[in-house]
Amino acid sequence: MRAAVIGEFKIFAGSANPALAKSIACELGARLGGCVVDRYPDGNVAVELLESVRRKEVFLMQSTSPPASDHLVELLALADACRRAGAGCITAIVPYFGYGRADKRSGRREPIMARLVADVLQVVGIEHLVMVDLHTPQIEGFFHSPVDSLTAVPTLCEALRGRLPAGIVVVSPDVGRLPMASRYAQRLGTSVVVLHKQRVSGTETRITHIVGNVSDLACLIIDDMITTGGTVAESVKALLSAGARPEIIVAATHGVFVRGAREKLSHPAVRDVLVTDTVRVTEKDWPQLHVVSIAPLIAGAVRRIVADGSLVELR
Amino acid sequence: MRAAVIGEFKIFAGSANPALAKSIACELGARLGGCVVDRYPDGNVAVELLESVRRKEVFLMQSTSPPASDHLVELLALADACRRAGAGCITAIVPYFGYGRADKRSGRREPIMARLVADVLQVVGIEHLVMVDLHTPQIEGFFHSPVDSLTAVPTLCEALRGRLPAGIVVVSPDVGRLPMASRYAQRLGTSVVVLHKQRVSGTETRITHIVGNVSDLACLIIDDMITTGGTVAESVKALLSAGARPEIIVAATHGVFVRGAREKLSHPAVRDVLVTDTVRVTEKDWPQLHVVSIAPLIAGAVRRIVADGSLVELR
Amino acid sequence: MRAAVIGEFKIFAGSANPALAKSIACELGARLGGCVVDRYPDGNVAVELLESVRRKEVFLMQSTSPPASDHLVELLALADACRRAGAGCITAIVPYFGYGRADKRSGRREPIMARLVADVLQVVGIEHLVMVDLHTPQIEGFFHSPVDSLTAVPTLCEALRGRLPAGIVVVSPDVGRLPMASRYAQRLGTSVVVLHKQRVSGTETRITHIVGNVSDLACLIIDDMITTGGTVAESVKALLSAGARPEIIVAATHGVFVRGAREKLSHPAVRDVLVTDTVRVTEKDWPQLHVVSIAPLIAGAVRRIVADGSLVELR
Amino acid sequence: MRAAVIGEFKIFAGSANPALAKSIACELGARLGGCVVDRYPDGNVAVELLESVRRKEVFLMQSTSPPASDHLVELLALADACRRAGAGCITAIVPYFGYGRADKRSGRREPIMARLVADVLQVVGIEHLVMVDLHTPQIEGFFHSPVDSLTAVPTLCEALRGRLPAGIVVVSPDVGRLPMASRYAQRLGTSVVVLHKQRVSGTETRITHIVGNVSDLACLIIDDMITTGGTVAESVKALLSAGARPEIIVAATHGVFVRGAREKLSHPAVRDVLVTDTVRVTEKDWPQLHVVSIAPLIAGAVRRIVADGSLVELR
Amino acid sequence: MRAAVIGEFKIFAGSANPALAKSIACELGARLGGCVVDRYPDGNVAVELLESVRRKEVFLMQSTSPPASDHLVELLALADACRRAGAGCITAIVPYFGYGRADKRSGRREPIMARLVADVLQVVGIEHLVMVDLHTPQIEGFFHSPVDSLTAVPTLCEALRGRLPAGIVVVSPDVGRLPMASRYAQRLGTSVVVLHKQRVSGTETRITHIVGNVSDLACLIIDDMITTGGTVAESVKALLSAGARPEIIVAATHGVFVRGAREKLSHPAVRDVLVTDTVRVTEKDWPQLHVVSIAPLIAGAVRRIVADGSLVELR
Amino acid sequence: MRAAVIGEFKIFAGSANPALAKSIACELGARLGGCVVDRYPDGNVAVELLESVRRKEVFLMQSTSPPASDHLVELLALADACRRAGAGCITAIVPYFGYGRADKRSGRREPIMARLVADVLQVVGIEHLVMVDLHTPQIEGFFHSPVDSLTAVPTLCEALRGRLPAGIVVVSPDVGRLPMASRYAQRLGTSVVVLHKQRVSGTETRITHIVGNVSDLACLIIDDMITTGGTVAESVKALLSAGARPEIIVAATHGVFVRGAREKLSHPAVRDVLVTDTVRVTEKDWPQLHVVSIAPLIAGAVRRIVADGSLVELR
Repeated sequence: MRAAVIGEFKIFAGSANPALAKSIACELGARLGGCVVDRYPDGNVAVELLESVRRKEVFLMQSTSPPASDHLVELLALADACRRAGAGCITAIVPYFGYGRADKRSGRREPIMARLVADVLQVVGIEHLVMVDLHTPQIEGFFHSPVDSLTAVPTLCEALRGRLPAGIVVVSPDVGRLPMASRYAQRLGTSVVVLHKQRVSGTETRITHIVGNVSDLACLIIDDMITTGGTVAESVKALLSAGARPEIIVAATHGVFVRGAREKLSHPAVRDVLVTDTVRVTEKDWPQLHVVSIAPLIAGAVRRIVADGSLVELR
Repeated sequence: MRAAVIGEFKIFAGSANPALAKSIACELGARLGGCVVDRYPDGNVAVELLESVRRKEVFLMQSTSPPASDHLVELLALADACRRAGAGCITAIVPYFGYGRADKRSGRREPIMARLVADVLQVVGIEHLVMVDLHTPQIEGFFHSPVDSLTAVPTLCEALRGRLPAGIVVVSPDVGRLPMASRYAQRLGTSVVVLHKQRVSGTETRITHIVGNVSDLACLIIDDMITTGGTVAESVKALLSAGARPEIIVAATHGVFVRGAREKLSHPAVRDVLVTDTVRVTEKDWPQLHVVSIAPLIAGAVRRIVADGSLVELR
Repeated sequence: MRAAVIGEFKIFAGSANPALAKSIACELGARLGGCVVDRYPDGNVAVELLESVRRKEVFLMQSTSPPASDHLVELLALADACRRAGAGCITAIVPYFGYGRADKRSGRREPIMARLVADVLQVVGIEHLVMVDLHTPQIEGFFHSPVDSLTAVPTLCEALRGRLPAGIVVVSPDVGRLPMASRYAQRLGTSVVVLHKQRVSGTETRITHIVGNVSDLACLIIDDMITTGGTVAESVKALLSAGARPEIIVAATHGVFVRGAREKLSHPAVRDVLVTDTVRVTEKDWPQLHVVSIAPLIAGAVRRIVADGSLVELR
Repeated sequence: MRAAVIGEFKIFAGSANPALAKSIACELGARLGGCVVDRYPDGNVAVELLESVRRKEVFLMQSTSPPASDHLVELLALADACRRAGAGCITAIVPYFGYGRADKRSGRREPIMARLVADVLQVVGIEHLVMVDLHTPQIEGFFHSPVDSLTAVPTLCEALRGRLPAGIVVVSPDVGRLPMASRYAQRLGTSVVVLHKQRVSGTETRITHIVGNVSDLACLIIDDMITTGGTVAESVKALLSAGARPEIIVAATHGVFVRGAREKLSHPAVRDVLVTDTVRVTEKDWPQLHVVSIAPLIAGAVRRIVADGSLVELR
Repeated sequence: MRAAVIGEFKIFAGSANPALAKSIACELGARLGGCVVDRYPDGNVAVELLESVRRKEVFLMQSTSPPASDHLVELLALADACRRAGAGCITAIVPYFGYGRADKRSGRREPIMARLVADVLQVVGIEHLVMVDLHTPQIEGFFHSPVDSLTAVPTLCEALRGRLPAGIVVVSPDVGRLPMASRYAQRLGTSVVVLHKQRVSGTETRITHIVGNVSDLACLIIDDMITTGGTVAESVKALLSAGARPEIIVAATHGVFVRGAREKLSHPAVRDVLVTDTVRVTEKDWPQLHVVSIAPLIAGAVRRIVADGSLVELR
Repeated sequence: MRAAVIGEFKIFAGSANPALAKSIACELGARLGGCVVDRYPDGNVAVELLESVRRKEVFLMQSTSPPASDHLVELLALADACRRAGAGCITAIVPYFGYGRADKRSGRREPIMARLVADVLQVVGIEHLVMVDLHTPQIEGFFHSPVDSLTAVPTLCEALRGRLPAGIVVVSPDVGRLPMASRYAQRLGTSVVVLHKQRVSGTETRITHIVGNVSDLACLIIDDMITTGGTVAESVKALLSAGARPEIIVAATHGVFVRGAREKLSHPAVRDVLVTDTVRVTEKDWPQLHVVSIAPLIAGAVRRIVADGSLVELR
């Protein structure tokens, strides 16, 4: 196989989050590769690289955030262009992997979208992936190619440090987030409380138990992503009912924020909402919202990848 | 491989054109298979089959018309659901193959989207394709799987018959449409005129020559698809300058009609615009527009495929 | 592809659990296909089919229970022999998928064995899988081929019915088993209690919380598999400390029972241990152990698969 | 996968040996499928099927006899045409597999042509192979698809029966042919003699030992193929030197007969040369040459394949 | 993947055009890699590399010119030998891609030879292609691997410059060659005339229109390849009838020249015929024929590929 | 593709023969890469790399000696871990390829295990193999990846030199070992004798002829592997009956030695038994047994592979 020249690389970005791409390039002391990512009059994705990638190691930056299909097709198009132009090795940096929740069938007649997306990314020639806080660790196994999973927990903890009131517990909004909550608690030197929730319908959930004590404590609700805000809103309600202090902070890696999410999160007890910029945040005039950049983390990963180094300490 | 039970089949439709799917099912005396094709709150495609496809021969109806990425991902999701549910053989009916014009690179650093789409359709388990009036015949070669290419020319000619003024020539708007124009001319018993056009920019073209005589003749401008309407508008202008009678009819297989197309087509000399329903037409109150259904053609193909018959006469 | 003749099938069994294979064949009114599954003098797997499989639908029965590597290689060898002999469609029935717990990497430098096994099963020509109570539902997504996941919960509930004392709760030994515990509870008309455990080392765990009330109640501890018995022993201890009645019943789908497991399970409070025969049970003289046959469930699945029917009701 | 309709099949033939194809069709009471196998003015292979193969089981008859490259490309072209036309299952009947001797590398920098040919046959969609007297049994393992290996030994023995003088031994011209020689001897009720030969150069060999007694005996020299005739000529010389009677009969499955072969075989002691028609024999006026048709054997295999039967007795 | 050592490469040549291979090596200041490309007595391709390719970047030079099947199989054999010998990256330089016209099906039951050849080239391990003036740009899309398409137009224009009479137009012999004709016209500072031709039969064509003025002008007929010479002969006749001066020059990239081509081109009005050496020209004593070497162009491409450079300026 | 950094490599070893791995590392002046190769309580293979392999060239040492299934699965697991951890190029060094004898089907309904193992090794990402004295050279063709076959004959000849009595012949125990025997004879300057044996049953053989003279000569019986010792024991008996001197030496590359082998080899005439350490020898107190290390040979191959050199002289 054509090998990438060691140490030389180029980063191109799709349209999902150009600001993050620029920050990462900046952190790396590099320049974003020139490329056109546009639409034909019929809305079809139009892509062109403006510089040579021959045998270069190429990083393609693109979260598959909403509109996920368009962002996915852009990423595929960029990878196809790179492969056909003789790129040496194509790594996709997908800070937010937007089909991560579709990692299993709940009945017998559904797709497994996360595996499907893994397959199509690989068929166009993407040989390596860098992703942040995957919804479940099994998703790595949907890929045959190597996946370097990063976590934003240390980044968010760093940003949280000055902001946390005394007497705070980390709250996992359901049992699935327990491993992530434990990472927060370990870094922040506090303990974990778990909410047991039941999904009542597609978008509605109900908290049935709280494992651990929240009485008279401030709470840091954590999650991998905030989409509708419903989970957080339910959690806030349950925590307050259980005697928590009305000092609640919310931290999540991916701030997807669909229509109505801000309203659900705007409870007077919610002091701060922290997310990273894996997904471009378009909300304005929302004083509680703080966006922490993931760029240093990803730049660090790219630097180690290019230099042949180990990513263990970034896990 | 799990074989489909011969003669039994199911048709499911994505959201691109449910009306066409229903018409085809109706033509076949069949029922559309029950399925949910929806969106999660974050806009991601959500798909579920509502009936068993185990070992059934499955036809998935979906044009990759705008929004093409969403319609493509829906088709992939449906195919994944079918494959995982044990479908016997999965055929995609893609009446309008929306990446057909992206069948080559114009520089060195572009994708070949039509091949890319062929690859991703096949990787999810689509083993056979039925498509109508492909932009170039080479697209069949982008697929390893069999492709049954149909043409809407006979269908449109049938619809045109009563409507054509005497003394009419078929006009190919550029040299690439010459084979299609010849098919029209042969069926309608008239001759072909070819416009030589030059693309000035991405969306603008200029006619430089007219091969053949149009003086004092009515014109039938044909094309595989109408997107912006620019090509037709230019052709109308050139034909009238060359002395054509202001009796112009336009026929195209795929009526994609992006914003502004109707205006470009609304020239007083344009008497009628005929398209098929490969793409769902949402234009209303446009008296010149006539939509001819492709459903009988596709139903005929399905019937022959299921019954093991030859499609040669449908070519 | 060569198609299997509809309705005709053959079942062959590896050496992992011939008794179960026979029971299934018996349930189906069929005969086990003749085959030799042996060892060369150097211990290498030696396989030969004794009857024609040409275009037959073939089911290969083999749990990848310990010794897992040998049982896996036997299954691969059987599939290779079938494919080379012209079998029409090869389905592996793997009642116990022995690498299910290795479904993710805990660090960066580990294999994902469950995906690896999925890949090698598929590369030899296995096109369909039937498995029982997978460790996580994501494992289905490690396969590109269709996977029909069955559950032994109804079978075990049926067997439990006469045996259960009044006033019993279903105990999930950790949060991962909660969905399975809920199924038990729903069928048995009772409620669920969840233990929160922490893994202290590779084999040792510690219970930290009990979510729900067990005071003065009998307990049905459920799990997908029992290997060392350590989880159950820990659970028993914790439940008794929390005031549960010393009337504990244990139910699990897969009774792997490695050396020492029986001792760990032999607590005076443990009245009954129920497992199915997905793994061959070699324990003798253990009055508390009850083995419930999964054969009717699997036979039902085979019957529906062969007859083109739906497995939805077996989920 | 699209399944072939059981029991219906079509046979098409490349240009390597149309007479054999016709005989096989005739034996089967079938008609050869209509197809054009021609050359463009530049010598490129031009192929067209003249009848529908949709979902039919298709057999493609073509030995890769000289000119091997052209015959191979014809076979690939036929398979591609069938696959694209929706054929159900494509079996190649390759009575003479012309790259069989190139089954290993003698140095480090050679191709393994037999594996290469296996790969290209499979990539165009050939899913099953029928071949006769492969040069080594390992060649089956170069294919992932099933290979049904037939042998012409019984056919040739039948033809030899009336023709054999008393007191005859079967002669294996080298140790590699020993298994084939033993099959002859077993059927003819006689014993085997083996010549040990050393290859002196690419085309020349020297016999160094004769294992077994030939003194005053007639000899049946057998081989899988006769190409230059050099091996047979050397064997004749060695046998006569060792005291064999000058009554020698030669039997080989594949009569490739390159230029000069007839001269080498025209020794007065060689009474008869028997070959089958796996390769089209164009030699004329050669009274010692007898061509025995393999058609009944292959027709028998096709009949069993189509009817789902076992080929064990044809081995 | 084993990576080629950057900057080191080897070129090996098949038997199609050793003189061109030598010229390219000479231009590069390199030596052709030693290899044997021969035939066994039965005509089968025999290949052996005479030097190590371990981890070297390897270029394999071979046009698939007539006899195309043999030249194709030689190329496959060379690639297989390289891959098995541990080559780092295998690029095929196919100056004339001999199946380029077979890029579509005209009916439903034909192969698409250009795609078939793309598939078999890739299956043996060819990862990159360099080709000159492909018949249609879509052929790039038949390959999954990167294709670097070069054009001989600048090379031929350079050679034409001194030779062109004043008052000359570029003639495209059919509408398909229009883009190539425009490139010539742009470089030579003149205009384009297009002939509209109809194919009457497999080898015969008829010109129906001439778009543009040729009256009293000299003509440069261009084409991608000359095979039978029929297209050129027809064009000459039509141009003269339309009043062109009997000063006609013919330029084509690929001079395939099958039997009879020279006669068809030997019209008194045809002053010069220029082709490149992508195909070995064996014609002798033909004063009008001028062969321009493509070696500098290809050497330039190889130099840039090896040095990681851009080929954009060679397009 | 991600390329390995040239010249840097890591060697990891499975549990089959850690001593050999250490010797090889030592010969190379390298350190064995740290890794855990262990078993879970249920006996399943557990693997973890303890150091980074990112973009490193990785060599995985593992013979598939008994227990072959476990050793195979360990090798697969190591390769999966390396691929997922971003290794540059994965080469498996399999000194003893334990399925080599299963290289063909003897009937129609058997697997071809050697091809099966080749397929699974490649599917996990092993791109290159180094093996010693393969049972048949065709096995290289079961792999698509390059295979570097080494031979232990020079190593064993070197070790034999001082030990050989005068007047010795090399004995090939059957016709399949003739090429290996010739290599011995050529190096030792003596001649070859071949035994013709017939397999009576699975484990029993009978010698029918001895080609060449052994009368009053010492014998060196050679073989690729010794498993049960049956072949050697039979050979010894036959040679003594034919008048050989009771001075017999046995040399084989792979000393598999299953239970009972030592007894069969312990004939008073057998003076010495030489094997290499491709398989870990666990026999103790067996004075006739001499184990010669293959480490220098394999280290030499690794050194040349890493340095991009030729292995021709190691053949």
